[in-house]
Amino acid sequence: MAKLGRPRARGESTSGLSTEEDILVAASELFSTSGYAGTSTHKIAAAAGLSQASMYHYFAGKQEILLALLMQTVRPSVDYAAAADKGDEPADTRLHALCAYDVRLLVGSPHNTGALYLLPELADAEDAAFAAFHAERKKLFHVYRRLVADVLGTSTRAAQSPASLVFGLVESVILRRRTEGDLGAAVAGQVADASLRVLGVSEERLAEVRLSFV
Amino acid sequence: MAKLGRPRARGESTSGLSTEEDILVAASELFSTSGYAGTSTHKIAAAAGLSQASMYHYFAGKQEILLALLMQTVRPSVDYAAAADKGDEPADTRLHALCAYDVRLLVGSPHNTGALYLLPELADAEDAAFAAFHAERKKLFHVYRRLVADVLGTSTRAAQSPASLVFGLVESVILRRRTEGDLGAAVAGQVADASLRVLGVSEERLAEVRLSFV
Repeated sequence: MAKLGRPRARGESTSGLSTEEDILVAASELFSTSGYAGTSTHKIAAAAGLSQASMYHYFAGKQEILLALLMQTVRPSVDYAAAADKGDEPADTRLHALCAYDVRLLVGSPHNTGALYLLPELADAEDAAFAAFHAERKKLFHVYRRLVADVLGTSTRAAQSPASLVFGLVESVILRRRTEGDLGAAVAGQVADASLRVLGVSEERLAEVRLSFV
Repeated sequence: MAKLGRPRARGESTSGLSTEEDILVAASELFSTSGYAGTSTHKIAAAAGLSQASMYHYFAGKQEILLALLMQTVRPSVDYAAAADKGDEPADTRLHALCAYDVRLLVGSPHNTGALYLLPELADAEDAAFAAFHAERKKLFHVYRRLVADVLGTSTRAAQSPASLVFGLVESVILRRRTEGDLGAAVAGQVADASLRVLGVSEERLAEVRLSFV
């Protein structure tokens, strides 16, 4: 996506990030304060310290920037989930680790990027522009569902509803960030613990699962 | 808020709802499809079958309509919570009932009104326009926290973090509606059960709690 070598409007980045990353951080801040509809590519370029022409060198437009931001909220978790899906540890241990990883990703983004999930622009699942995001998120959910099925000893079909509860609990940190502000480092472990409790994992077993990460 | 007696632009409502309710339903649909920023009061009036002048008779503007919609997502739960807070039943029974009630309210709104919680326009907690909403939501959370403290046998201070998990789990149906569509009637009981499991309530006790609602 990024093509290197183009000069910036105002010289080198002082953020230590790549130009593409500078654009994404600027956009996520503007989307979270002015809304997606209320943010122009002109404003994003200015906030990233670029001319609009330079920015178009990295992203074709606002929609492509939004897609890149959305992908940042899900792709690392999909990669982590792919490894967790194949791991040797028991399913509850792998699910606990995945929940914690996913929460850390969602609470670690500079401007609560997950809040963009509720943009009306994404509501149309048929919209080809965001198909890649919806597909990644579905892939992630399917790993959750397989792990939940293994923890419960049921079919993936029977795991649909408990997996949705766990997935919802993980993503609830998006809503909580909006209300509570910085959730702190402990929240990842708390949500991961709560996810296993939702599935009826005993406190004894949960203590063992936690120990396997020390 | 509503003053009766003003004629509509296109005659009587065919929805069976009050004019105020017609305006709110029309606005929530437009907000969820075109976004808050992308919806004019003119469009809302047209969708509700009113002239813009008639609509201003009910609401001073778009912000007041948004506030009314937000209040609909929380006020009935606050009323229910006030009763639950004083009930004679054990705290876990009352918390279970409150979770189920709250989920039913959130999934029952015609256009996932809870999604409006993530609007950038609400992010500034100091904004006086939405102070009433933030205050109601905080009041609701405080009842959750008291009930969670009672269930766990801890102080309300120690209950802050588990209560936030439960509150997040309840509100996660807002995110789930966006992805899963209609969540069905069973989800209220599922979330209420999961909330007690998060707090470590045993399956035996949970079965008793469920029976007290039959």
